[in-house]
Amino acid sequence: MISVGIIGASGYTGEELVKILQNHPNVEIKSLTSRTHVGKKISEVFELDKPINDVFKKPTTENLIGCDVVFFATPNGIAMDMAAELINKNIRIIDISADFRLKNPDTWEKWYGKNHSAKSLLSECVYGLPEIPSQKEKIKKALIVANPGCYPTSALLALLPIVKDLEKQKIILNSTSGISGAGRNLDSKKLFPEGEDNYQAYAVRSHRHYPEILQILHNDNPDLDVLFVPHLSSMIRGIYSTLYLKHNYKDIEEVIDTYKSFYRDSSFIKITEDQEFPKVSEISLTNNCSISLHQVESGDGVNLVVLSAIDNLIKGASGQAVQNMNIMFDIDEKISLV
Amino acid sequence: MISVGIIGASGYTGEELVKILQNHPNVEIKSLTSRTHVGKKISEVFELDKPINDVFKKPTTENLIGCDVVFFATPNGIAMDMAAELINKNIRIIDISADFRLKNPDTWEKWYGKNHSAKSLLSECVYGLPEIPSQKEKIKKALIVANPGCYPTSALLALLPIVKDLEKQKIILNSTSGISGAGRNLDSKKLFPEGEDNYQAYAVRSHRHYPEILQILHNDNPDLDVLFVPHLSSMIRGIYSTLYLKHNYKDIEEVIDTYKSFYRDSSFIKITEDQEFPKVSEISLTNNCSISLHQVESGDGVNLVVLSAIDNLIKGASGQAVQNMNIMFDIDEKISLV
Amino acid sequence: MISVGIIGASGYTGEELVKILQNHPNVEIKSLTSRTHVGKKISEVFELDKPINDVFKKPTTENLIGCDVVFFATPNGIAMDMAAELINKNIRIIDISADFRLKNPDTWEKWYGKNHSAKSLLSECVYGLPEIPSQKEKIKKALIVANPGCYPTSALLALLPIVKDLEKQKIILNSTSGISGAGRNLDSKKLFPEGEDNYQAYAVRSHRHYPEILQILHNDNPDLDVLFVPHLSSMIRGIYSTLYLKHNYKDIEEVIDTYKSFYRDSSFIKITEDQEFPKVSEISLTNNCSISLHQVESGDGVNLVVLSAIDNLIKGASGQAVQNMNIMFDIDEKISLV
Amino acid sequence: MISVGIIGASGYTGEELVKILQNHPNVEIKSLTSRTHVGKKISEVFELDKPINDVFKKPTTENLIGCDVVFFATPNGIAMDMAAELINKNIRIIDISADFRLKNPDTWEKWYGKNHSAKSLLSECVYGLPEIPSQKEKIKKALIVANPGCYPTSALLALLPIVKDLEKQKIILNSTSGISGAGRNLDSKKLFPEGEDNYQAYAVRSHRHYPEILQILHNDNPDLDVLFVPHLSSMIRGIYSTLYLKHNYKDIEEVIDTYKSFYRDSSFIKITEDQEFPKVSEISLTNNCSISLHQVESGDGVNLVVLSAIDNLIKGASGQAVQNMNIMFDIDEKISLV
Repeated sequence: MISVGIIGASGYTGEELVKILQNHPNVEIKSLTSRTHVGKKISEVFELDKPINDVFKKPTTENLIGCDVVFFATPNGIAMDMAAELINKNIRIIDISADFRLKNPDTWEKWYGKNHSAKSLLSECVYGLPEIPSQKEKIKKALIVANPGCYPTSALLALLPIVKDLEKQKIILNSTSGISGAGRNLDSKKLFPEGEDNYQAYAVRSHRHYPEILQILHNDNPDLDVLFVPHLSSMIRGIYSTLYLKHNYKDIEEVIDTYKSFYRDSSFIKITEDQEFPKVSEISLTNNCSISLHQVESGDGVNLVVLSAIDNLIKGASGQAVQNMNIMFDIDEKISLV
Repeated sequence: MISVGIIGASGYTGEELVKILQNHPNVEIKSLTSRTHVGKKISEVFELDKPINDVFKKPTTENLIGCDVVFFATPNGIAMDMAAELINKNIRIIDISADFRLKNPDTWEKWYGKNHSAKSLLSECVYGLPEIPSQKEKIKKALIVANPGCYPTSALLALLPIVKDLEKQKIILNSTSGISGAGRNLDSKKLFPEGEDNYQAYAVRSHRHYPEILQILHNDNPDLDVLFVPHLSSMIRGIYSTLYLKHNYKDIEEVIDTYKSFYRDSSFIKITEDQEFPKVSEISLTNNCSISLHQVESGDGVNLVVLSAIDNLIKGASGQAVQNMNIMFDIDEKISLV
Repeated sequence: MISVGIIGASGYTGEELVKILQNHPNVEIKSLTSRTHVGKKISEVFELDKPINDVFKKPTTENLIGCDVVFFATPNGIAMDMAAELINKNIRIIDISADFRLKNPDTWEKWYGKNHSAKSLLSECVYGLPEIPSQKEKIKKALIVANPGCYPTSALLALLPIVKDLEKQKIILNSTSGISGAGRNLDSKKLFPEGEDNYQAYAVRSHRHYPEILQILHNDNPDLDVLFVPHLSSMIRGIYSTLYLKHNYKDIEEVIDTYKSFYRDSSFIKITEDQEFPKVSEISLTNNCSISLHQVESGDGVNLVVLSAIDNLIKGASGQAVQNMNIMFDIDEKISLV
Repeated sequence: MISVGIIGASGYTGEELVKILQNHPNVEIKSLTSRTHVGKKISEVFELDKPINDVFKKPTTENLIGCDVVFFATPNGIAMDMAAELINKNIRIIDISADFRLKNPDTWEKWYGKNHSAKSLLSECVYGLPEIPSQKEKIKKALIVANPGCYPTSALLALLPIVKDLEKQKIILNSTSGISGAGRNLDSKKLFPEGEDNYQAYAVRSHRHYPEILQILHNDNPDLDVLFVPHLSSMIRGIYSTLYLKHNYKDIEEVIDTYKSFYRDSSFIKITEDQEFPKVSEISLTNNCSISLHQVESGDGVNLVVLSAIDNLIKGASGQAVQNMNIMFDIDEKISLV
């Protein structure tokens, strides 16, 4: 059994993680911590199918001793303070927050507006997007896995198979997220009457997921840039990305073949048929990513539209974290995920 | 022109009120105050069709001098502190909060859990439900109008025509409210992902609108009691009440005739045909109340189901407040209301 | 392995059933039939996590030979025409439609407005609510299980523990359903813009689930009647019932003890603590029923409010059907259900 | 008074139109026709604030004699059959369907898949987007006004001020529509459970509004093309367009000034401040279009993001139709519109 701890378990991501791990045959949840709910019964805070008869503990290393792996489902800035101590106790880390996603600490500090307290650990971290071919072996051995952001997961899965073959360009990434993407912290924009029957763009030019997307694209192709415009929609979950770019393949069939071939062993990626469009409802509550590819006529500009849909709380957060855990402990990556 | 001030203008109720008053041909909005937004531009806080080029002022009597009437769209406990001073300055008051709804200060203090600071004013207040026959003349002359709560409006309009003729009984009042009913103050239960696709009862036996409903019913019939169970539904606006009671009329036709006759001059009350059911969508964004009446077979118990639907922010709050203002200033009660 | 056929698999109920059975370790889905989709690929019609590489077949007995059990997820009036033939071929039946729910064929014909073509089978059918104590053994041996309606499941689970001890009365059953309850057949009332941000009562006095509820209550207590008012709410799934009745127990603790004792072996029933209220979100997508019990002061009328919440597509339809199948084939009733 | 007839009044567009015209002080609704509801009482089909005590008539010229103007709120293909006869009777036409939007009958027949039966009238029609400077005078005198489509309105208002100054390029138009955009005709994709909590692209490369947008852009600048990808979102109303393009102005301030100057007399266009983003909720139920402009860094590609939001049923259909009527009859274009 894998002995698991979860830090910051009371947000949307933490709740989702608990639900998935509860049904995982190889996992024993050893310790749930929450700064805001210390001492409260877990079943009072969460709506779980299987109630947990335990209380939230204080997030200290002592309360996590004996865990094989600890998940951080915390706000940014917490994992970096606890990581070194946990690793010293032989506890591996899957960080669902953004603390370990960017390799360059200066970039991190610029975009996240605070000092990074664990710079020396950044080189040891592995970016946990298992569909990147080179990543699976690295994740298997990693001490710290940086679980990708939701928008980057959605965008990168839509681009990975052809990144290497793209010419210099600025890809347009038009994304729409459900409201849970913004988390459970209180903000009047997230109240039901503001969210219901609404739609809007936000953070044009300034979303923190931009440098994360760029870092991964640049590993394979430093000529690429991205123009990222996120939007908020009246749905609980889901991220839908519509990408506009230029490819140089012979025709759309070659593009589709490239994707199918690239993802032939990726159990969570579905390439839909040409005339079908992914929709959020079909991937909601699953770890799947649904992708479709559409040729558009063009002189010399954009000639490809890629659509991708994921559940932001599953493949965009907790499901992918469990997928990473499965890989780290060398069991089938699909276990406990649908 | 009626010169108007609004205190606590930044909640859902205040926003709705501003929207209605902006289009009122006899009204000049003189002063908007908000504790939380003092100094902020009104147009930055509200989404108004016609922007207001002014800032939110501090809620002091000085900032309201010259107003003919002031609306309180504040949390409970604020109107009672300012009322005496405003009246001394010849400013009439329409209080959308609960401060002046209950005649008995002990009952108020028991249900609202704080001291009442303006007990001597309670006898001067007029309960602003204009569909109560005796009330219109009183509202016309009132210095302070206590605007009814949303659930009481919905319940009382469904009962008024027959209250006098009912025998001793406990009427069952099963109500469902949209989420805006709970206000714009922050609370994780009101976040979009918690509200969407959800439904639940709350406050069984303990909602503050219970003594308010009872007070009005007892004016006409001290033998009645009410069992009130409120629910919360995935919609922005609306209150839907389903009432179960026993009548002693000859048949359902006599009941319907009694309602139609009672409301023959009430422009906002619609009695639907027997086989039709009110729905929230048809009264949403209006000051209307839609009511239907259904006979049920019975030995000697419940034999009547009454359904009523209002918009909680309009007829249940700001629309009714403007209706009261229209009556107070002796103009057509329908002006600026749909 | 249990070899399973599904007739009328393309509605909401059928889709839900396929999803549950796909993950059932003891089940092999042998045949999916659909009148409207004959010959179409299953994966084109459904959004399944695990695609099925087969086509919808015509709903004939030949296409079901070899099945151990066949589910009817059809409109009313179809199961009764096929049942005799299937039973002759040693195929057991779980009917999610209403054909076999009422014991009295005259009552059925009156409420469903057509002739019943399999009256002789009615006596052999078992009403598939496994939480009725006597039922489990009967279900185990049944050739035909009549899967209960969604409202009856919600109402009966809220009443079963105390039915025997209630005095003569008309229980008030105020229920609210999500829009999927009305099925996937086309009707402008089910369009998104009509359903969104709406709420309404319907079918006061005339819903077909009324005689079904009454039949079960009368098994234990012929003195009871029910006044049933269903409502439609802006949510996809869920049924929430608020029941008003009179009990004669000593106090609310005795009521709660009676429920806890009655359901001590029922894995899907959750009695919530006194100050908590069931909500749809916590039982959504599960086979659970959440129930709470609330004492109200009373002279001699209603003194108990019972709240119950189920997912209409799971415990109210397909989940309960699988629970029944598990019992029929003598395996753990919880398998494949959460 | 302007005497008005409405043909095909029972869809979402027709209903919205009736609601606006009911409150129009210069309008008398003379005749409502509906093929599907002939003889039915209007108040039974619509939920109107002010009930209309009349029945739906058959859509014949006789039933429209005496009207000054007739609105077509019909499916495509009906206005073109009736237009000549109405004009002969001195009845002017505002066609909210697509029959008269494209100048070239071959293009129309290609995109709409049927023969055009009134080709000779196409040259007389005026495209009713009053914010195009040249259009207002033409609309004033027009016999037939072709009311623009919802997506074209949203896209063109976002582009008009700078169309002339753009270099050759394919503008990316990423749009999201509420579900009412698809109309009230029955289709399982529009059912509540399919629409709720969902998001998807559709009609990539193939939406009929593409040639309409192109026609208007080409009037001012034949070098432009558009890549249009529409999406469907979980909201009742609203169209949100995110446009990506390249401008050659000095800086974003010059772009903003160009827009503000262009729209200085357009009462329905709001240019939001730089750091604000339009949202659907703020224009919902109004005839307004909210636009914001965002500079993005660029080498030589896209350097401008334009966001625009309208209510698809108002500014995208019936509100704009009334705005056109107001202009045609030489009264203030804002009358009866908010």
